[in-house]
Amino acid sequence: MNKIEKIRKYLKEYNIDGILINSSTNKFYIGNLFSSSGYVFITKDKQYIIADFRYFEEVKRKSDLFDVILMDKNRRYFDIINDICRNQNIKEIGFEGSEVSFDSYKSMSNKLNVTLKSVDLSTLRKEKDEDEIKYIKKACEIVDATFYHIIDFIKVGMSEMQVENEIVRFIKELGGQKESFDTIVASGLRGALPHGKASEKIIEYGDFVTFDFGAKYNNYCSDITRTICMGTTNKELEKIYNIVKKANEECIKVLKSGMTTGEIDKVARDIISSYGYGDNFGHNLGHGVGIMVHEYPALAPESNEVLKEGMVVTIEPGIYVPELGGVRIEDDVFITQDGCMRLTTSTKDLIVVN
Amino acid sequence: MNKIEKIRKYLKEYNIDGILINSSTNKFYIGNLFSSSGYVFITKDKQYIIADFRYFEEVKRKSDLFDVILMDKNRRYFDIINDICRNQNIKEIGFEGSEVSFDSYKSMSNKLNVTLKSVDLSTLRKEKDEDEIKYIKKACEIVDATFYHIIDFIKVGMSEMQVENEIVRFIKELGGQKESFDTIVASGLRGALPHGKASEKIIEYGDFVTFDFGAKYNNYCSDITRTICMGTTNKELEKIYNIVKKANEECIKVLKSGMTTGEIDKVARDIISSYGYGDNFGHNLGHGVGIMVHEYPALAPESNEVLKEGMVVTIEPGIYVPELGGVRIEDDVFITQDGCMRLTTSTKDLIVVN
Repeated sequence: MNKIEKIRKYLKEYNIDGILINSSTNKFYIGNLFSSSGYVFITKDKQYIIADFRYFEEVKRKSDLFDVILMDKNRRYFDIINDICRNQNIKEIGFEGSEVSFDSYKSMSNKLNVTLKSVDLSTLRKEKDEDEIKYIKKACEIVDATFYHIIDFIKVGMSEMQVENEIVRFIKELGGQKESFDTIVASGLRGALPHGKASEKIIEYGDFVTFDFGAKYNNYCSDITRTICMGTTNKELEKIYNIVKKANEECIKVLKSGMTTGEIDKVARDIISSYGYGDNFGHNLGHGVGIMVHEYPALAPESNEVLKEGMVVTIEPGIYVPELGGVRIEDDVFITQDGCMRLTTSTKDLIVVN
Repeated sequence: MNKIEKIRKYLKEYNIDGILINSSTNKFYIGNLFSSSGYVFITKDKQYIIADFRYFEEVKRKSDLFDVILMDKNRRYFDIINDICRNQNIKEIGFEGSEVSFDSYKSMSNKLNVTLKSVDLSTLRKEKDEDEIKYIKKACEIVDATFYHIIDFIKVGMSEMQVENEIVRFIKELGGQKESFDTIVASGLRGALPHGKASEKIIEYGDFVTFDFGAKYNNYCSDITRTICMGTTNKELEKIYNIVKKANEECIKVLKSGMTTGEIDKVARDIISSYGYGDNFGHNLGHGVGIMVHEYPALAPESNEVLKEGMVVTIEPGIYVPELGGVRIEDDVFITQDGCMRLTTSTKDLIVVN
């Protein structure tokens, strides 16, 4: 089904005559417009992109499925939308309630001569098409190559930030647009912070170091985590490493279309709990990845979303022990009918950097 | 006035008993918490940070002015806020209506046992304190040094993206956290796109090239634009260059505390219009810069905000001619009682790269 038709399914589901899209992610997905301003507007029979002076020329060149309309000070966004609605006798339209601020909603409902209904498009991009998989796979190849580069690069005595800078530089050298989120480099005791952004801390002999980073390629994201150790290992952290690895691998072994998000989360959580670390795994098992690095679905405890062929999700169990450190191992996988396919392929053997 | 007291002024202005802050920018500004999750909650007498497991330890260490409360599955954010409100007999609280989505507002109003009022905090960060100026100045020094580096680096035959990558790499080499927004490199005819992100286009002999980029330092932004030319100049673009430069310089000469945003925009617009290019300057003159690269106030035509000592704004006139190219020159300036001080100091002479 093409992307515009996917939107039209929501028209039926919500019994409305149009949907106004303002999130930059969905404007890009549907209309190839990556910008915080402008709108994509889909009605039963037509589709529009409304852009200002800054984007109009580029959008017009790139989006031949759409009527592209220029917004200017004489005919503002809502004037244009009111005109379209009047001409097509549209009385009620949907908007992205999770993406539009309360104040913007208030302003929209004052300026538009139609009724507004919040529609939930969070599942719109859940199943990736062939092109999308191609871009995500490329973004994964970039982070795999970056991981292998970094284990050569990293040395005792460097700061976490130096390592972060090299990760970001190398992603771009490989043709990535940029990092898909702020790179995490958490070494030693900082490893107990699941979201420890790279700091000025110096990496020391004996530290376990967790890297969590991603690349963007053609606006699609990847997301990988690996934990390595510097020079020498540590008994308890090595034990933890093997538990986390087992949880990651077991999930990837059993994951397939038809499982629920809660079921797969439980696979990892049960393994980690069986070793007594249940309370040290304080986050979800994973999340969808696509234009956003975090998107539908959340692989969370007791959640009930059904995983489907075509989805790309992360599998990222972790164990964090205050005053000791932490380990997380994360892959991106593509779900198929019978199983799943790893898109990040970096080794999960514990690497000791010398 | 300290930052918590600034928030308490809004309590009086809106006649409410508490303000719930959820934007990552204001959570950082007030509570040193840079995260999309968690809340800062300010009441008449107390101030709280409510964070989950991932941020709790770090916030607790860094924020001694606050009661730091851990959210977990047994006591969720809104349970904690309801408890505080009940204990302090709070009936109505404010929320950031421009930052909270319509759907989140709906959910909040279902879960909280108090009335909610949208409050506008957009002017909260308008006047920068000494520390903030220090960080912005450092972010400006980084982009100045990067500009001088790039005019040495750029060569005919490179792609715009290669230049972008070097800009981003160099910002980090100089100690910047990252770029403050997606770097614009627009060469030749692409110069007519005011927001032309770096593309695969090859930079050619005779191209005018516009760079618009920024750095972040300690979460504060800078934002600079310069246009240079490759090898040889072009009569009409050189004429345009001098008009834009004159508009930029005249604004910086006359800008001071007490002027309105519309008045300063008009200074540039009148100069550009006097040469017949009024219709080719299709964006605002500038905007505030701080934790966000775009923040209050907008220096827009016919706007009436009063510019005050302590504000940092951009001055960025431009002229864009389809089928020819474009020029924009942008500085960040700090407004004082009697004038303004440039924070970006890169030369504005037209540079011809050989």
